[in-house]
Amino acid sequence: MPVSLFTSSLFAPLYSDDEIAGRLADDALVAGMIRFERMLARVQGHLSVIPSGAAEVIDARLDGLQVAPETLGAGTASAGVPVPALVARLRAEVGGDAASWIHWGPTSQDVVDTATMLQARDCLELLKGRLSRLLDTLEEQSQRHRELVMAGRTRTQISTPITLGYRIAQWAHPLVDAEAAMPELLRTVLRLQFGGASGISGAIAPDGSAVSGALARELGLHDGPSWHLNRTPILALGAWLQQVSSGLAKMAGDLILLGRSDIGEVRCGTGGGSSTMPQKSNPIQAEAIVTLERIAATAQSGLAAAAAPAEERDGARWPLEWMMLPQMLIATGAALRHAQALAETLTPDTARLAARLAANPEMMAETASFVLARAGVSRSEAKDLVAGAAASAEPFAEALTKACSLDIDWTKELDPATAIAPAREMAERIFAKRMTG
Amino acid sequence: MPVSLFTSSLFAPLYSDDEIAGRLADDALVAGMIRFERMLARVQGHLSVIPSGAAEVIDARLDGLQVAPETLGAGTASAGVPVPALVARLRAEVGGDAASWIHWGPTSQDVVDTATMLQARDCLELLKGRLSRLLDTLEEQSQRHRELVMAGRTRTQISTPITLGYRIAQWAHPLVDAEAAMPELLRTVLRLQFGGASGISGAIAPDGSAVSGALARELGLHDGPSWHLNRTPILALGAWLQQVSSGLAKMAGDLILLGRSDIGEVRCGTGGGSSTMPQKSNPIQAEAIVTLERIAATAQSGLAAAAAPAEERDGARWPLEWMMLPQMLIATGAALRHAQALAETLTPDTARLAARLAANPEMMAETASFVLARAGVSRSEAKDLVAGAAASAEPFAEALTKACSLDIDWTKELDPATAIAPAREMAERIFAKRMTG
Amino acid sequence: MPVSLFTSSLFAPLYSDDEIAGRLADDALVAGMIRFERMLARVQGHLSVIPSGAAEVIDARLDGLQVAPETLGAGTASAGVPVPALVARLRAEVGGDAASWIHWGPTSQDVVDTATMLQARDCLELLKGRLSRLLDTLEEQSQRHRELVMAGRTRTQISTPITLGYRIAQWAHPLVDAEAAMPELLRTVLRLQFGGASGISGAIAPDGSAVSGALARELGLHDGPSWHLNRTPILALGAWLQQVSSGLAKMAGDLILLGRSDIGEVRCGTGGGSSTMPQKSNPIQAEAIVTLERIAATAQSGLAAAAAPAEERDGARWPLEWMMLPQMLIATGAALRHAQALAETLTPDTARLAARLAANPEMMAETASFVLARAGVSRSEAKDLVAGAAASAEPFAEALTKACSLDIDWTKELDPATAIAPAREMAERIFAKRMTG
Amino acid sequence: MPVSLFTSSLFAPLYSDDEIAGRLADDALVAGMIRFERMLARVQGHLSVIPSGAAEVIDARLDGLQVAPETLGAGTASAGVPVPALVARLRAEVGGDAASWIHWGPTSQDVVDTATMLQARDCLELLKGRLSRLLDTLEEQSQRHRELVMAGRTRTQISTPITLGYRIAQWAHPLVDAEAAMPELLRTVLRLQFGGASGISGAIAPDGSAVSGALARELGLHDGPSWHLNRTPILALGAWLQQVSSGLAKMAGDLILLGRSDIGEVRCGTGGGSSTMPQKSNPIQAEAIVTLERIAATAQSGLAAAAAPAEERDGARWPLEWMMLPQMLIATGAALRHAQALAETLTPDTARLAARLAANPEMMAETASFVLARAGVSRSEAKDLVAGAAASAEPFAEALTKACSLDIDWTKELDPATAIAPAREMAERIFAKRMTG
Repeated sequence: MPVSLFTSSLFAPLYSDDEIAGRLADDALVAGMIRFERMLARVQGHLSVIPSGAAEVIDARLDGLQVAPETLGAGTASAGVPVPALVARLRAEVGGDAASWIHWGPTSQDVVDTATMLQARDCLELLKGRLSRLLDTLEEQSQRHRELVMAGRTRTQISTPITLGYRIAQWAHPLVDAEAAMPELLRTVLRLQFGGASGISGAIAPDGSAVSGALARELGLHDGPSWHLNRTPILALGAWLQQVSSGLAKMAGDLILLGRSDIGEVRCGTGGGSSTMPQKSNPIQAEAIVTLERIAATAQSGLAAAAAPAEERDGARWPLEWMMLPQMLIATGAALRHAQALAETLTPDTARLAARLAANPEMMAETASFVLARAGVSRSEAKDLVAGAAASAEPFAEALTKACSLDIDWTKELDPATAIAPAREMAERIFAKRMTG
Repeated sequence: MPVSLFTSSLFAPLYSDDEIAGRLADDALVAGMIRFERMLARVQGHLSVIPSGAAEVIDARLDGLQVAPETLGAGTASAGVPVPALVARLRAEVGGDAASWIHWGPTSQDVVDTATMLQARDCLELLKGRLSRLLDTLEEQSQRHRELVMAGRTRTQISTPITLGYRIAQWAHPLVDAEAAMPELLRTVLRLQFGGASGISGAIAPDGSAVSGALARELGLHDGPSWHLNRTPILALGAWLQQVSSGLAKMAGDLILLGRSDIGEVRCGTGGGSSTMPQKSNPIQAEAIVTLERIAATAQSGLAAAAAPAEERDGARWPLEWMMLPQMLIATGAALRHAQALAETLTPDTARLAARLAANPEMMAETASFVLARAGVSRSEAKDLVAGAAASAEPFAEALTKACSLDIDWTKELDPATAIAPAREMAERIFAKRMTG
Repeated sequence: MPVSLFTSSLFAPLYSDDEIAGRLADDALVAGMIRFERMLARVQGHLSVIPSGAAEVIDARLDGLQVAPETLGAGTASAGVPVPALVARLRAEVGGDAASWIHWGPTSQDVVDTATMLQARDCLELLKGRLSRLLDTLEEQSQRHRELVMAGRTRTQISTPITLGYRIAQWAHPLVDAEAAMPELLRTVLRLQFGGASGISGAIAPDGSAVSGALARELGLHDGPSWHLNRTPILALGAWLQQVSSGLAKMAGDLILLGRSDIGEVRCGTGGGSSTMPQKSNPIQAEAIVTLERIAATAQSGLAAAAAPAEERDGARWPLEWMMLPQMLIATGAALRHAQALAETLTPDTARLAARLAANPEMMAETASFVLARAGVSRSEAKDLVAGAAASAEPFAEALTKACSLDIDWTKELDPATAIAPAREMAERIFAKRMTG
Repeated sequence: MPVSLFTSSLFAPLYSDDEIAGRLADDALVAGMIRFERMLARVQGHLSVIPSGAAEVIDARLDGLQVAPETLGAGTASAGVPVPALVARLRAEVGGDAASWIHWGPTSQDVVDTATMLQARDCLELLKGRLSRLLDTLEEQSQRHRELVMAGRTRTQISTPITLGYRIAQWAHPLVDAEAAMPELLRTVLRLQFGGASGISGAIAPDGSAVSGALARELGLHDGPSWHLNRTPILALGAWLQQVSSGLAKMAGDLILLGRSDIGEVRCGTGGGSSTMPQKSNPIQAEAIVTLERIAATAQSGLAAAAAPAEERDGARWPLEWMMLPQMLIATGAALRHAQALAETLTPDTARLAARLAANPEMMAETASFVLARAGVSRSEAKDLVAGAAASAEPFAEALTKACSLDIDWTKELDPATAIAPAREMAERIFAKRMTG
């Protein structure tokens, strides 16, 4: 076992995601914190909260400044957050009188929470693009296979016919909802945090809200009251990531079942080899999506434990977010990447699909019982009659013909292709939600 | 230990909630399922999907019909859902030709999911009212105590002065966000489920979407494509309940700390007695809120495990929702009830609050260091000077006067009352969000 | 959705367990608490900690006394535990001078924790019997099907041949471990809790440990230092229940796969009907086991949240145990019940098993590559050669014969029956652990 | 937020543990897998399962061989496990005829699970040493402060007097249990995994169990039937780690409360500074322990999700263990490290402890009520009388003297020092368990 599937060079190529992980890298985090301090000085200079000369010096000196993350670790060990060490370093870099005006009014949590939001925004942009692309691909595939009839399964038993196009649309459904929820999500999540020591910006009163507003604009985040004790943004982001992860896991789980060697109706991805069995072609990518969903869901439960911080700041609960939210972001990012590969390579085995339909005519049992009911046979009679025919050794249509004296063209009525039209309509209704939000 | 804190007559008075539990009672669930079948027949009659005469008979016969829940339990044990037994019973009640047209096209999941949504709506109406009332009370109390200065605490250490009014506003903050999220929540959650055997309403094609639209209108739910495989509504409801629970737990946790015998700055609720210690006054209600939050958060993690159903219906994952969502609803409902009682009875001990301020003048250390910095002392010098004064045996203001040659009126500068204005502004910003959504 | 799957008359017949639930009923809990108080008085009388006359009166009066649980609920709402109300009631029942000597020294937690242990013991006895019986059945079935060859599947792909007897033994394996762990479990879990107000039995010093020892003997529990702050017994019980639940879910999950309509190699249980599809036979009991495992695992995560109580008693964390442990006990009990039914009715479809073997000769690919390697072909050459043959359109043995010039009797080498002996040995090794512990 | 608190150079110094992380490093994992393959060849050579000459070549060539982990990542991405790529690499390293006899019979899971067990053993040795050392320190500190009386608190309210020595013993209690459980734990956990493709070692039949036995001896692990489908070892390890983490979190949580600025009865560790408040001294290490406990508990819930693998190998559930178990090991290791530092530096503030006792004489209320009861006052009368005295403005002893006509030396009876003897006895009982196991 490695320290983490997301950082181990043995496992990261499968389970991690370079692009998301890059946005969560130590460098990116430090850069976000420096950006906070730099923009804070800039807006405080404009607002004359600090001397404008000092602000200009800070702004210029911090421009492009890089601080090696490993130089801040000891500071975290002693202070619980890297901010005091970073601020000391920034003051040393800037030097002179201007140094005193760095970090004028905020507290560590303002810096860390806001830097987290900058990272969250970068990650969400990436995830949004991937989600949109995946939905485009699923919509295409759903459209392509809109007339490909297959056996539906409920509670693991063959139920009634559906189409592959419809099944694909159902995979898309939670993702369509997640895409539609995104504008509201961004409004809820991407908030500047600015409150100072105890959340009231007391040290720079009465300028707190003016600084907060200007800084939010500068950073492109939403302004609002200090949320250091209101973890709604974190919870909302976690909930959305879990929703996306679950949606992808539904698709992956179905693909694993469809690709079992004893089913084999749909194939996708690149099959994984075995260390000892030459013939194996394992569903590595789909399995990874399922694993990643459990990682994301587990992490979400850890997020909840951070959501009721004590008093004005909680040093025990807050850091949980730094452990859990990144796991969710990376897991969701990696799962989207794999899902795209699966969606693109998805290929039905039409022969096996057709063979399944032929071998399981009893999937038309519901249809048969409705035909009988429409013809006046009571539901319970119809049910018995149909169940009897389905269990008989004879072909289903013949058994029904024998069992029932009505003049019904069972071969026509029991054609699974009758599923195509309603399946298509339902698939279209799902994708139509993308238009209307 | 009881079977459940929510049903045990020993524990339910503390941990459960009669009104929510009533909406989740077996009777209410059965009534919801019957309502689905009745309204389905009605709209199918209007749309001529079934004979209008039969529809009228069904509508009339099911009006007010009560089915004893315990008569359906054996059916659940055999079918996994109570619906087949219920439908058989309804057909027996209606009798004659009309009986066949009951449950025309839907599947068990349509009935159960829609009945769940009817229950969810009833619960959300109740919770919305309680949340609104609680926020009104918190706003009043925040307003009342807007000038009552108290020690803020970050990471368990006294930080800088705040006001009780501000602290109360911070308790309200996640709840204000939850209230604002409600319209979107209701749109996302309260959906009719209608899809039939495999989700495409194949049995009643091409009438599926017409029936779905009419039935949604009749039941007052949102229409849309079948979500039996897209558990977004359940996840969104769970996320919202967890958010509310966490918000309440933040308030309760703070009240527990403020009411500790060694702090005693705020009291509320009715203290619980001990079986052996005559003097005890335990914070029973606030503790219960914290317990309930953990119950809700734990249940939420179970919900996630249900969110990636296999194929067209998943009989193993789906029932988890029936175990987890009710726990979340009851826990949130009970917690809101207790929070209301605590909010209404919240009473500060002004003497102890003032004594704390007097005993901890070092909570003005940040202010002192900003005063020095504004006067041109470098931040690190200021920090050392202030930390030295805070650690000295002398009164803080005197120690500062001695330690620093500048002409500063320390008594005035270090008055904790300077916190009142910014604390009030932040509190007002929080409650102002209720207006703008 | 119901208040709880375990108490709803609609759902309990499938998901709950009457016998376990009976041991957790309010009546049983109250009886346990009364038994604690009665036996405490008895041993304190014997040890002259309280007047022996009073002890005798208490012992006699509490013998067979029943207190209606619902009369204690208001007391819980006010005190957080039902004990103060119960003690008041017992004093009223006993009356006179003796009344004062009831509850002499203990605190509420002593009563509740010890009553919990009495319930845990009753439940564990029941579970132990069920586990043992299930293992007997599995061993019989494993023995019965020890020569029935079937396709093994790894990562959802057909791997190499195994036997049904071996698969059944693997289902038993975690349960064999759980059975072997039971003696240690009982020692770890079944502890008397006795500590008084703050855990040191200060009120009856120096008699605390004498009373504790005598009371433990009287109640048949292990004596030891007060564990009110050391939740090891609860955690250990939870961990064991989760282990059993997971083991059962492994078996149930495999049975669900084996019983899919498109696999159908093994059937068991009584198939559940559908509300609309006459032909359906759903794996209700196996699905319920999987659901119950998720309920148990979710509850276990809630138990962990109770395991670090604050100071001398934690009123917020402790009650979580009362919500979570019962869910685990009932879920495990119900799952064992269903597993027994499945194990007893398990019936292979030998025709479908044989057809699978015939249709998938490539499951002998590993064997083929080992035959080649033993004959001197390098592993990578062998792998390519075998993979090529497996992918060819010809029968596997013929393809191999053509592809390789060596004189190998492929038909004999590739007989899946070669799996019987090693499968049998592994199955026997698993069940042999029952003997040696 | 960083990718992981355990790998970020910004956060690892506080939250990670170098020694545990070193044992989980990619290098260590690869070394463990190579060791498996090397020892397998060695024992197979001895047993003539493979040619002894080939075995000797393999043994010699793999001795000290290092394979750069990053060269195996692409192999994991394609196969789901790094083993096929590693085996290919080892065969290339060894070359010639011997190469074919590498990895003779096992499957990837045998290699990975056994390497995991070798890592687990290394980690457990380390944790065992730390646990033992921490218990020694706690025992010393408990002994040192055995007569230092302090206020006990139940449900956040001052209850009755205890000693600091007793409180420390209660912190040790779960850890004493964990230490005692270790021998059984090692037996349960440290198992060789050896089963080949589908768990029956079919490829090397009938030599499977001979090889397994010899390999287990060579690696110092327990032999037994293949546990690839029985995750008891993983679950048992996870349960133990969670128990230790919770125990440490109990201690840390209490230290956080005791060190609050408004309590300040005990100090320990090195206080963390604030980015803006000069006077702050935050309980960074104790908070980190609480955070780490939540990380461990969250990860444990993920482990449970891996515990019911499907069929002969489950590629979706199994990898969860690689993500969750390391988090638990590192979190527990880091928490033990911090706990040691806290235990060693723990220093009571005797003045504040004494002041608390003086200010809260009502903590003797239980004692007073027992004194009255022994003197013949009924329990309810005694309770009222004592509660009245506790609530009065007068000193408690005087109020009692006035309120009750009995001749009782209240000053003597209400001396908190009466708690010393029973507290000491309970502390000694706890540590005595270390002797007897």
